[in-house]
This record gives sequence, structure tokens and C-alpha cells, in this order.
Amino acid sequence: MYRTHTCGELTINNKDQIVTLAGWVQTVRKFGAITFVDLRDRYGITQLLFGENLNKQLDEQPLGREFVLQATGVVNERSNKNKNILTGEIEINVTEFKILNKSAVPPFTIQNNTDGGDDLRMKYRYLDLRRNIIKQNLQLRYAVNRSARNYLHEQGFMDIETPFLIKSTPEGARDFVVPSRMNAGEFYALPQSPQTFKQLLMVSGYDRYYQIVKCFRDEDLRADRQPEFTQIDCEMAFVEQEDILQMFEGLIKRIFKDVKGIDYSESVERMSWEDAMWNYGNDKPDIRFEMKISNLKVQNQNYFEPFAETEFGVFKNAETIVAICVPNAAEYSRKQTDELIEWVKRPQIGMAGLAFVKLNNDGTIKSSFDKFFNEGQLKELASFCNAKTNDLILILAGREERTRKAMSELRLEMAKRLGLRKDDEYKLLWVLDFPLFEYDEEFNRWVARHHPFTSPKPQDIETMINNNPVIEVAEKYLDHPYSKIKANAYDIVLNGNEIGGGSVRIYQRELQEKMFAALGMSKEEAQHKFGFLLGAFEYGAPPHGGIAFGFDRLCAILGGSESIRDFIAFPKNNSGRDVMLDAPSTIDEKQLEELNINITKRN
Amino acid sequence: MYRTHTCGELTINNKDQIVTLAGWVQTVRKFGAITFVDLRDRYGITQLLFGENLNKQLDEQPLGREFVLQATGVVNERSNKNKNILTGEIEINVTEFKILNKSAVPPFTIQNNTDGGDDLRMKYRYLDLRRNIIKQNLQLRYAVNRSARNYLHEQGFMDIETPFLIKSTPEGARDFVVPSRMNAGEFYALPQSPQTFKQLLMVSGYDRYYQIVKCFRDEDLRADRQPEFTQIDCEMAFVEQEDILQMFEGLIKRIFKDVKGIDYSESVERMSWEDAMWNYGNDKPDIRFEMKISNLKVQNQNYFEPFAETEFGVFKNAETIVAICVPNAAEYSRKQTDELIEWVKRPQIGMAGLAFVKLNNDGTIKSSFDKFFNEGQLKELASFCNAKTNDLILILAGREERTRKAMSELRLEMAKRLGLRKDDEYKLLWVLDFPLFEYDEEFNRWVARHHPFTSPKPQDIETMINNNPVIEVAEKYLDHPYSKIKANAYDIVLNGNEIGGGSVRIYQRELQEKMFAALGMSKEEAQHKFGFLLGAFEYGAPPHGGIAFGFDRLCAILGGSESIRDFIAFPKNNSGRDVMLDAPSTIDEKQLEELNINITKRN
Repeated sequence: MYRTHTCGELTINNKDQIVTLAGWVQTVRKFGAITFVDLRDRYGITQLLFGENLNKQLDEQPLGREFVLQATGVVNERSNKNKNILTGEIEINVTEFKILNKSAVPPFTIQNNTDGGDDLRMKYRYLDLRRNIIKQNLQLRYAVNRSARNYLHEQGFMDIETPFLIKSTPEGARDFVVPSRMNAGEFYALPQSPQTFKQLLMVSGYDRYYQIVKCFRDEDLRADRQPEFTQIDCEMAFVEQEDILQMFEGLIKRIFKDVKGIDYSESVERMSWEDAMWNYGNDKPDIRFEMKISNLKVQNQNYFEPFAETEFGVFKNAETIVAICVPNAAEYSRKQTDELIEWVKRPQIGMAGLAFVKLNNDGTIKSSFDKFFNEGQLKELASFCNAKTNDLILILAGREERTRKAMSELRLEMAKRLGLRKDDEYKLLWVLDFPLFEYDEEFNRWVARHHPFTSPKPQDIETMINNNPVIEVAEKYLDHPYSKIKANAYDIVLNGNEIGGGSVRIYQRELQEKMFAALGMSKEEAQHKFGFLLGAFEYGAPPHGGIAFGFDRLCAILGGSESIRDFIAFPKNNSGRDVMLDAPSTIDEKQLEELNINITKRN
Repeated sequence: MYRTHTCGELTINNKDQIVTLAGWVQTVRKFGAITFVDLRDRYGITQLLFGENLNKQLDEQPLGREFVLQATGVVNERSNKNKNILTGEIEINVTEFKILNKSAVPPFTIQNNTDGGDDLRMKYRYLDLRRNIIKQNLQLRYAVNRSARNYLHEQGFMDIETPFLIKSTPEGARDFVVPSRMNAGEFYALPQSPQTFKQLLMVSGYDRYYQIVKCFRDEDLRADRQPEFTQIDCEMAFVEQEDILQMFEGLIKRIFKDVKGIDYSESVERMSWEDAMWNYGNDKPDIRFEMKISNLKVQNQNYFEPFAETEFGVFKNAETIVAICVPNAAEYSRKQTDELIEWVKRPQIGMAGLAFVKLNNDGTIKSSFDKFFNEGQLKELASFCNAKTNDLILILAGREERTRKAMSELRLEMAKRLGLRKDDEYKLLWVLDFPLFEYDEEFNRWVARHHPFTSPKPQDIETMINNNPVIEVAEKYLDHPYSKIKANAYDIVLNGNEIGGGSVRIYQRELQEKMFAALGMSKEEAQHKFGFLLGAFEYGAPPHGGIAFGFDRLCAILGGSESIRDFIAFPKNNSGRDVMLDAPSTIDEKQLEELNINITKRN
């Protein structure tokens, strides 16, 4: 051992002990004949005091930032105590030291507020990882990992490893593939998730499975997407949806307790997907605050009667008109409302404009469309929206989908401005009863909203089995019985972020075949891709279901961050590159030859 | 929930309770008007009794093997008790039942002794996994996983995930590679181990790291090798070899305790690599029994003088002559010794013959080469080999390497025949002081015996730095100073199987560069492949070292099996194929196009 203690554990109780520490030089401060060094390791920082007697050695072997140092000395009480750190009452009066390794001057400061930009920090990730803030993130990640494993273990779940070199069955996202040297012209795929394997494990009788496992998706990367990411992947047999919800809200509550010290004792709220869309314009609403959407007109149906006969063109011609009431914002100035109008006009939001109504403190009411509405009508509108005195009603009008989405964004933005999205408040929500299918305009066919293994609600199975999935008239897809089928699927949402999702699965071969057919797969294709699963369903598949949590995102939210990258030890950038390794990179011709492949285009 | 209890938990204490079970039909036995069904799940088997009142329903819905059944009834005391299982005192008097899913007749019996062959079982792995014996293997695997994590957690290790899409740096084994769609002509590689990442984590200050992680090697598969396999991967900073040995024999002892209930309280034996080779002919000796090798003549040097002048050609011309004393085998018949001779002549062993000396009970001594040696000389030989009365001395002669290896095999074979390799006995051994380099005849250069990051012994660092690695005369490679350099490397051996290995690492840039040069890497190549690591060593790398355990093999040995395959949920066959999935397989032309590659040869 190079040390007797870590840099985070010595206190006044160790006074007069002779100790040896090893770590990195955080700072060197020289005061006349004596030198102070802050020595840092994973556990903390301890102050070293080098007296006059060591000056000669220090001259010959000067210390620099990030040098690796071993120092032996006596624990002394400090005259100048630092109450902020555990070791702040003591210092080590060094009697001997040894430089274990030198360091060049680091390209950025190893501090929470570093002067290093993103690219530099990624290139020197091994230095970036030394910063306390990143260390805390990885420690939090490990705490979540540990907590999840403990809970699942206590609940009888078994960690069972599933393979990484599997078969390519692209459905939705693209697979990463791996050429097989021993089987020329053939490829493995890296799993997008262990979905089919965990289902097979249920067929095999391992009724509670979990894994914290890497998954891979070769997608065009958006900010904060990684080509490899980690899931907490779980599956249970002989359960119904209710059992699964109970089990896994228990998991998240346990993580809150273990990692954040929070007792989340209230039961988790639930909301149907339809209600979420209707009231929040979003399938993952942040319910830390209210500000529900008022649906004045939806897909040309007037819910607020006075709008039916308005001469105000914006409202008259709009497919959908929705509003929110922003509390205590009636005194917004013209400048402020103008700024909000600009905000909704940005391309990310894409609205033509924003209408508003102010319910002033003095009882008057004022709108941006006073020309077309009298005070009585405005009061009626305020009443319809459940607005209160001092509220600012914001109204968007336009095409249904875009308008609803824009209102959802506006709602979040206003909440942020009002400080309603509190960092230290955590609100979980189950969103239930998703549609089983989504309509794919490009190919005029159905796609699975969750994935092809999700079961319809029991009462919708007949509808699914007894109808032809083909959509005769594209425009009338909403009339097709399949558009009404609800899935036994659920998402768990934390503060407006989807942290997990799952479903009760299909376990009957006939229904699974119907599902594949509904998605436009021929019998041959279904057999080629998923023959093993259809086969398994012939030999006694039990009812089962599960869930997968996005582990990176869960950690980021618990760590109070929007970005997952700082919760991953070695992340990739937005082009899928590891800039530290310089990967991907070219490989030898010999390797290509052995793999029986050629490159057709190079960057 | 489809059940109130599992099939493994009801006892006489639950008598008269109304319960619901769900599981698989193991057997159906009809006795007149009543029917017995054994219902099976992950937890056990419970007997169901269907009375006369259910006969009509049973006729309409007959039960078959592996049907998924839900049954409700009353817990009754059995008249005919089965003491072998926990639930053997009770049965369920079924009042209602529901077939949750039917099953086709399985292609093999779901029993420990199944009638299914290997190929069939692999194809229907989801059924094979139902067999109790496989379930126990996976449960043991999970128990080892859990035990290792608990120990490492308590010792302050952090599980930190390292990336799977990394850079190809083939050194030793071949990499699996992954074409990058977004970076045309470039490839990721799948990690052969997280070696460089865990070292970077040490540089970053995470001084105790672990991971239970998949690794990948694209090697020509031998029996019992898998292209993807799992390691318990660990690394520590500010430690010396001794600290690492202590820490990780503690890990294995903890696993023994948690998984097998064994208190392995004695300290783990240690042996140098040279002693292991000299005494056992093997760098992973099984030390559950003695039978050490007697070195009569080694590389033409006579240690047993009388052989120096023998006229017996086999001995006279042999480079090496080694012997073992097999206890209590002097009465081996001619037939038995002939059979042993055939055994060593098999191509796997490849010896020309076997000589023997019998030390009979009556004090006489008899050899297969009596013509050339008198009784006095034979007695001298027996004494040299420390043979006792009733021992059978077996002697092999030939080329050093082959002969030593053959003797090692013969030693294990004789021990097996004598019952000295006991299934329930566990003996750990550290093998230490490996050579740092091995000689590569083909390219007349050095290769790293462990890997290029292993540190030489401190006293050998000078030798390494100050000598030119080039071997001037191929035949005289043993005269090169590098052949004498010992590594700070260690293997841990369990019952003759290497279950883990590691080393203290190089952490100085200069030494690491010398190592790359010694392995024939140009500066440019070293920089291209490992520039990130050399870079990291410039910014304060601490002394560090670690170990990796072969998790699959460790589980197999603890489970008393020679084969790792039955300890992996979804293994691949010897051609690297997953026959259940039928992977690898062809992929779409569109996929190839997007990846900018062509296939040059198909199977």
C-alpha cells in the first residue's frame, strides 16, 4: 500500500498519528519558508504542510499541479480551520515525501468551474473525470445501480445476461452490425434491447428477470443521444399491468430513498395517454405544476361556443385553439408579451403568433383581440379557462398537432420562468392506455407505437384479430378499427421526462402473428426474423410483461442535469465519435480481407 | 397476479388455505376418477389433485405436458408424502382451473436427464432452460455475481461502465469490428477487455473500479470458447502486488462462503511460475494432490546421474526425462500399463512411449527397461523420485516442451483415475513471477506474455530500459536479457483451472513506450493505437494494478462442470453460431449500402 489513509478521512481524532497519504497535487502555496499543498484523491482533500527542512528537497524536486505525490507526516491541528470539508481541522506536517509521477500542465483546470471547453474536455476525458462534479455524477450513477440491484434482488429478480452478438431484425431503429469472419457474408447485430431474450426467459420460467445492460442504436444522433446507452431492463411472468406498475414504482421510490434520501410515500399519479395529450399536449407531462390546457376548439370542433361565430380570422380559420392560464402574470408588459410572441414564432416552436387575455387586478379584462370580442365574451372565455384574477391567458391557434405541441412547450417555458419547475421537487406519473398503433403516412400502414410485442388491451384483442389491417383509404385511417385499439403499455414520467416504459406482452402465437401482419410483415419475413419467438410461444408461454428504464437519463435527472453525457464515464460526441480514442477509425486491409468485406466509400 | 403462491412454498403450515398457483404441467397421472398433476415453476413443484367434479372440464380441456395452468384450490395434507421436496407434504385439491396457454409436445423431455441431444437443446434453448439442472446453473451464476458485487462494494469499489464501441487495436486476438454508418470507411471495435479504460480510470483517480462485463474475441473457436464472454474486471490504484493478491483472494473466499457455504480460511498457496513449470509441467497446477514431477534430465542436463551413461537409446537421446510416482499403483497389470502407453501415444499427448518402474509390495523392483538398469540403479532412481513401496513410477522422455506438457497431462489423468481430483475439494493457488516476454518464433520478436501494459518487476526495469529489444540471432533468444525479465503478474488457479489473472501495470510513459517498442511497434503505430494512454501517463498516472476473472469459467467450476456453455443463458456453438436465433445471418442490401461496404465472398 502506498498510503495508510485516504485524503478524505483524517480528522482531529487522528491528531498526532503518523500517516502516509497518496494523491494528486491540487494546489501549491508558498509562504516564506513553508509550503502548503492540497492533496486530492477520490475521497477528499487534505492539506499538507512542508516545513523549512524540506525546502532543499522541494527545490530539487519541485511540485506541480496534478503531480502524484506520496507524503508521510504527523496529523496536526490546523490553526486556520476550514469548516467546509471533513478534513478541514487538520493538516499533515510532512516529514518525507516522494513524487510518484510528474504531470505536464493540464490543458484545463481540474475544478468544478473549469476553463476547458467541451471538445477539450472530451479529448482529455481522463482529466475531466478528475473534476469533483463529474466524480459526483459517476458516484450517483453507481448509487442508482446499487440501489436498483438491491431492490430487484430483494424482490426475487435474477440478473441473467443476454447475448450481444445477435441477429439483425431492424424494426424502427437501425442495427449496428458485426461482420462474421467465420461465416462469410453474414453479420451479427448488436441488440437494440434484450426484448426478445427477456421474453424467452419468461417462456423458460425465470419469472423475474433483470439486467443493467448496454443497448445499441445506429441512429442519426441528436444532442444528448448516445449510440450505446444503458437500460435497467426487467420482465415478470404471471402478472397483470397493475402488478408491474406497483413493482416498478417501488423501484423508483427505493432509488429516491437510497440515493436522494427522499421518502416518496404518496402513490404515483396515473393518467391516460388521451388525458395527457388533451390536458398537457404531451405524453410526458411535468405535473409539478398545473397550468392545464383549455381546449377551446379542437380539430374544427368548437368547445368554447363564442368562437364558433367569431369574425377574428386567426380563430375562425384555425383547426385548433388552446389556452393556458399563467398565474400572476397579468401585469406582463407589452415588451414581455411581445417577447413571448417572438418566442412562439421561433422555428423550434413554429407558430404564427400568440393571443392573450389579461385578468387585471382591478377586475378589468384586456385581450390582444379586443376588436372582435366584448368584455362579456372575454369573461366567458376566462371562466371557460378557469382563469383567476391576475392570470395571463395565453392562446395559440393553428393546426392541431403543431398547436398542441407548441402549447406544451409554452406551458413548460412559462413554468420555468415562474420557477415552478423546482430542482428539488420530484413528481412521478404513470401514463397509461397508449394507442397500440401509429399511422405511418409514408407507407400508408400501421407501425407499433411501443414495439411489436406489446399486447392490446384484452377488450381490443377481438378487434385486432377480426379486422383486416389494410388501410383502404389513406385519409380515412382514423376510421379504421385499429386506430382505436389501446395498448397494455405504460410510461413512467419524472418531472416531464420519460424515464421508463414497458408493456404487457403478447404471449399467444396467433395474436403475435396478427401483429406482425398488421405491421406489414409477410409470413415468411416474420418467420425469418422472429421464428424463434413464435416457436417459443408454441410451448407454453406464460402471461408476462415488463419495463425498461433509461439508466443514463434517470441518473442525469436525479443529478439535476439536462445532459446525460456527464453521467457516462466515456461518452461519444454528437457524431458518434470517441474523440479521446479517435474511434471509429480505419482498420487494416488484412482485417477487411479476413472479414470478406470491401469498403465502397471513404470519408 | 395470476397466483397467490409459487409452486415452491406451500407446506403443511398452509393447510386448509385457499390458494392459486400458476405454472407448467410437469406430469399428468390419471387414477380412475381422479387426476394428479405436478405443477412446476421456477421455485419448485406442487402436486395438484383434480377430483371427479372436474372430469367433465378436463375432458373438454385436456392437459398436456408443458401447458401453462392456473389452478385454485385448498391446501390438503397428502396421504402419500414425498420427503424429497419442500412441498411434498401437501397437495392442492383443485376447485377451478384455467389453461393459460397450451403447449405442443416438446422436442425433448424437460428433465435433468433429457433425451435431447446438444443441437436440439441449443435450437430450443428456451425449453432447455426449463430443465432444473440448467436453472440451478444460472442461479449459481447469479449468486456468484451478487456475492462478488457485495464484496467489492464493501471494499469501496465502484462499478463504472466502459464503452463497447471502441477503437480497433488488435494485439494478440482478433477484434470484432462494427462498421460506422456515419463515418464512412471507419470501424468501431468491440472490446477484448476494458483494459485501457480501467487504467484511464485509475489515472482519473477512481482508485477502486470493478465491472462485470462482456468482452469479445474473434478467435477460431475451440470447444468451450465463446466469442463473447464475461469478466469480473477490477483495478486498484496506490497498491503493490501484495495488496492486490490479498484483496482478490478475499473476493474468491467470499464467493466460496456465499455460494458454496465453504469457509476457505487457510491462506492461499503461492508458487512461482518457474516452480510450477518445474514441478507440475504446467502454469496452472492442480494442487489438490501432490505427484510432483521428478526432473531426471532437462534440456540435455542430467540431474539423475546414472542416466548420463545409459545405453538405453530412448533415455540417451532424449532432451528431457521426467517422472511421476503414482501411489498404490505398483500392481498395475500388463494390460493396464499397455493401456497407459496407448494413452500417451494418442495425438493429443503425442509421446512415443512410456517407461515405468514398479516398487512392489514384496520389496522387489521391476521396470520396463530392466535390460539397461540393474536393481541398484532402479532403487537409486526410486529414491531420486521419492517413490515409496507400492508406487508406480511413470517416465516420459523426449523434447523438453512436449514432454513436460505430456507429463502434466499424465499427472492429471492418473489423479483422476485415483480419485484425487475431488469435486467437493477446492484448492486455490497464486502463480507468480511470470516471464514478461515470450518469444515469437515466426517473427523473431518478443510478445507480451500477459499484455503490453504489464509492468516488469522493479528490479528488472533497468534491464528493460537499457537493452535493445532486437534479437540478433534467433536461436540464441534465450541469451537475450529480455528473456530473463520477470513480470509483476499473477494468475489465480482453482483446482488446475486459471480463473483469473492480472498484473501491476506500467504507469510511466517512458517505460510504456519501451514496452511498445519491445513488441515491435513503431513510435507512430504506438501513438496511433495507444496515444490516449501514453497521453494520460503524462498527466499524473498513479501506480496501479488489477485483475480480471473469467466469470463463465469460475461459475462452471463452482458448479462442478467442465463446460462453460451450460452456465450461459444463450451460448453460441463451436462455430460461433446462435442456432436458436440463426445468427449470424445475411443482412439487407440497403443496410450494406448505408454502411458503405460490400461483401467479397459468401458462404
